Amino acid sequence: MARASHTSRPRRGILFILAAPSGAGKTTIWRGALKAIASLEFSVSLTTRGPREGEKPGFDYHFVSEEEFNRRLQSGQLAEHDRHFNAAYGTPRAPLESAIREGRDILLDIDVEGARQIRARYPDDAVAIFLLPPSPADLERRLRGRHTETEETIQPRLMRATREASEYPAYDYLIINHDVDQSIHELAAIVDAERLKTSRFRGKIALWQS
Amino acid sequence: MARASHTSRPRRGILFILAAPSGAGKTTIWRGALKAIASLEFSVSLTTRGPREGEKPGFDYHFVSEEEFNRRLQSGQLAEHDRHFNAAYGTPRAPLESAIREGRDILLDIDVEGARQIRARYPDDAVAIFLLPPSPADLERRLRGRHTETEETIQPRLMRATREASEYPAYDYLIINHDVDQSIHELAAIVDAERLKTSRFRGKIALWQS
Repeated sequence: MARASHTSRPRRGILFILAAPSGAGKTTIWRGALKAIASLEFSVSLTTRGPREGEKPGFDYHFVSEEEFNRRLQSGQLAEHDRHFNAAYGTPRAPLESAIREGRDILLDIDVEGARQIRARYPDDAVAIFLLPPSPADLERRLRGRHTETEETIQPRLMRATREASEYPAYDYLIINHDVDQSIHELAAIVDAERLKTSRFRGKIALWQS
Repeated sequence: MARASHTSRPRRGILFILAAPSGAGKTTIWRGALKAIASLEFSVSLTTRGPREGEKPGFDYHFVSEEEFNRRLQSGQLAEHDRHFNAAYGTPRAPLESAIREGRDILLDIDVEGARQIRARYPDDAVAIFLLPPSPADLERRLRGRHTETEETIQPRLMRATREASEYPAYDYLIINHDVDQSIHELAAIVDAERLKTSRFRGKIALWQS
């Protein structure tokens, strides 16, 4: 529900960052959240990797060449970027900044390093949520259930996830993904609550102006 | 839902303050919230005024004499207190402080001045929520709908509410009470989200300890 009607001027848009170790179940939560939560848009990232099965260009990612990625990076068009497992990922700046100005809320599906960059660049407008599977054993099971992983990629991902789990205090919120529906409910609660924060309102409350 | 299982040590309890001008509909929201939100206890205030129809001693309030109130105030047993419309109100300290220590969350039904005192005394553990009716005209209608108000009490309450509305940035969250169910939903979202804040967790995440 849009809360802009509370005040005489609309509030700024909020950048909700959902970060998680690879294999935490983030994509499922993210898709469910976009359906469950009103007025939440998503940011489409750039990547140099090829599309996976079922991924639609311009919807899941903008798929670009290394040259195009570097051109945008060097001309300051990316709000964050990271490179891992031989591919580059980045978030276009312009859509984020117009959303903040116009009071629209965005959900960003980015990794832990990207989340750090977004929080540093937009400290007042970003809310960082960290999603973790219940345990390393659970994450390993999820990774093995994917068709895209090999033994060579599973072990580095587990090590990385364990390191990242210890850094949870760098985020605003922590969701432990025991159950998809519960996690979507918790994400929705965070979005609803952040929209009610008095720090986001500007000026006087519409009908209470004196 | 209790989130203490996230970490090796339980988190501290949270003091949720629900403050509102008299007549904003707070009591209805507050009773609905206690039913709708899991593991939320309420703090029973002391007052020197007499019970209104339907109020149960020890449940709605502890009804005490002026002498008893002053004795507790002077011996430091009150976490906050205020006096208005010829009656004194106060919150016993001991139940709040054991709840914080034991990780139990409390909902406090106190007024705007009491909210200021609780936030000053427990800055890390208190979350202040301000509830407003949609407009002064709406508040006036609600006050006239009560049987306990006279013209002499309605006008000072309206003036006080207008002054308090301009002070909403002193609170963490603002709920505009357009609809009881929506307001209870928003209060529940705030409670859920605050319980997921990483700043409330202590130590490492249980199953991710390395």
